[in-house]
Amino acid sequence: MSIYKKTVIVALGGNALSPKNEAGTIQDQFRHTRESLEAVLHFVDRGYNICITHGNGPQVGAELIRNEISADITPPLPLGVLVANTQGAVGYMIQQSLQNALYKAGSDREVVTFITQVNVDRDDPAIQDPSKFIGRSLTEKQATDFHDKYGWDVKEQERGVWRRVVPSPVSKYIYNGLSIKHLVDFGTIVVAAGGGGIPTYLKEDGSLEGLNGVVDKDLSASLLGRVIKADEMFIVTDVDQIYLDFKKPTQRPILKATSSEITSYLEAGHFYRGSMEPKIKSALYFLKYHGKKVVITSISSLFDAIEGNAGSTITNN
Amino acid sequence: MSIYKKTVIVALGGNALSPKNEAGTIQDQFRHTRESLEAVLHFVDRGYNICITHGNGPQVGAELIRNEISADITPPLPLGVLVANTQGAVGYMIQQSLQNALYKAGSDREVVTFITQVNVDRDDPAIQDPSKFIGRSLTEKQATDFHDKYGWDVKEQERGVWRRVVPSPVSKYIYNGLSIKHLVDFGTIVVAAGGGGIPTYLKEDGSLEGLNGVVDKDLSASLLGRVIKADEMFIVTDVDQIYLDFKKPTQRPILKATSSEITSYLEAGHFYRGSMEPKIKSALYFLKYHGKKVVITSISSLFDAIEGNAGSTITNN
Repeated sequence: MSIYKKTVIVALGGNALSPKNEAGTIQDQFRHTRESLEAVLHFVDRGYNICITHGNGPQVGAELIRNEISADITPPLPLGVLVANTQGAVGYMIQQSLQNALYKAGSDREVVTFITQVNVDRDDPAIQDPSKFIGRSLTEKQATDFHDKYGWDVKEQERGVWRRVVPSPVSKYIYNGLSIKHLVDFGTIVVAAGGGGIPTYLKEDGSLEGLNGVVDKDLSASLLGRVIKADEMFIVTDVDQIYLDFKKPTQRPILKATSSEITSYLEAGHFYRGSMEPKIKSALYFLKYHGKKVVITSISSLFDAIEGNAGSTITNN
Repeated sequence: MSIYKKTVIVALGGNALSPKNEAGTIQDQFRHTRESLEAVLHFVDRGYNICITHGNGPQVGAELIRNEISADITPPLPLGVLVANTQGAVGYMIQQSLQNALYKAGSDREVVTFITQVNVDRDDPAIQDPSKFIGRSLTEKQATDFHDKYGWDVKEQERGVWRRVVPSPVSKYIYNGLSIKHLVDFGTIVVAAGGGGIPTYLKEDGSLEGLNGVVDKDLSASLLGRVIKADEMFIVTDVDQIYLDFKKPTQRPILKATSSEITSYLEAGHFYRGSMEPKIKSALYFLKYHGKKVVITSISSLFDAIEGNAGSTITNN
């Protein structure tokens, strides 16, 4: 069915789209996105089927601010809808930038963006224990007001600095997998599961409902890679490769490793929680189902990494 | 290729998604969307391939307000990106509501939303003459400030009431037509070209650039219908059928008509500019290319209209 030989899922970290993890002006975002996507053309040159997923931290942060500030004038949107907003906006940026790059390269492949929901378990313990800080800093007064008016959970992050907290449950699967795979196999470059996807859960009557929360984008990337039966996953982040003893005097890069080696490094605590650990877990999940190779690298090393000359490559043992 | 016999494009007017043409709370929007989509299930029951497009007026209005009010705190997004936002948010609402209705009906068809750009001519005279009012009312002082700070075009709509104006050029074609058609033919229900699509134009170097403007959603619906080679188009609006001598003592409904009859009624000025006229033009365009039948009706009459017992049906002469 597939018109190209291999399928790759490319997971672009937030910093591949926004410099310094801030949304910045839209001009900044477009310029940065354009630069990052030049690297994705290397997969086009090599005739891959391609699926792209991306972070949305800075963009959803800006959306939250806009909705908070104008809450008295126009009803604020729930977090799930704001994730949908950012999937639309970031997808549009990627789509247009990549189409322009493809045009210059003489390729007529289409680039589309899907609005993507992910399923979380309604009994996931994280739902009862919202602990992921999102949005801007609030005074105690503001925090109390938003809690009373919109039912937000708020917590004191540092002394005197309050922020909204939301649940971050585990994503179980990606909706619309058949359609995403059908189009990736057709040769269309598909952008999906932006920001990890919009979290939803099944109610007792079997209907789907949005959750005011966020999911881990690295885990969603590997679920997406599994559903499209990708051969390779490239995780594009802000380091050229992963390290043992990161930031210690004994720090050394991992160039090639098997999934069993990585599993033992993970168990030995080599990877930082909240930064590299979720990427490593995503890589291991991907390799467990269909996946043949995971490469973790930066935008600037991506070309060399595709050639096998940079980044950290993990394969099945 | 297609697994169903007939393909339909359903164009949902703004009032099918938001009551009284206001965005309202998200709960209002979800409830209203759910009710409207019950009617779309009739096409599922009859085994159609289905593509849906929709208006976004109230939603983009709310986005503009949020961006204006918070402009000093976080950089405002250009109009094209706000259209992308609303394609994401409204698509998410439609997707989830329709999936729930399909689940209850025992159907496993997938529903996806595409972020859609449309092409406009960079020499379209409307670009030099922005005249479509958008966003909230401003004082002269606010209007001048926004003009100076963000380069907005502003005009006095009524005495003392200023608003932003943007161009509304003619949409020429829909991007990603091959992918949309491939997925519609696969049986997936595709939501595309929300709000008429994000207007973009080709620069002299052949690259694509967003335009701070809006396009007519009715015309985009017929372009979309053409690209997927739909057999039928249903335009769902706030009247049960179209009329001759609308709102005059001689008013009479049109139940069935040919495209040549409709063309002569159009030339005789029977259809209001800015309300029914663009729908009529969209219908005639659709019938000119591949289209066999157009039905104009309301949500409440949709079921009967599918059965041929309500609405205005236009066919080729």
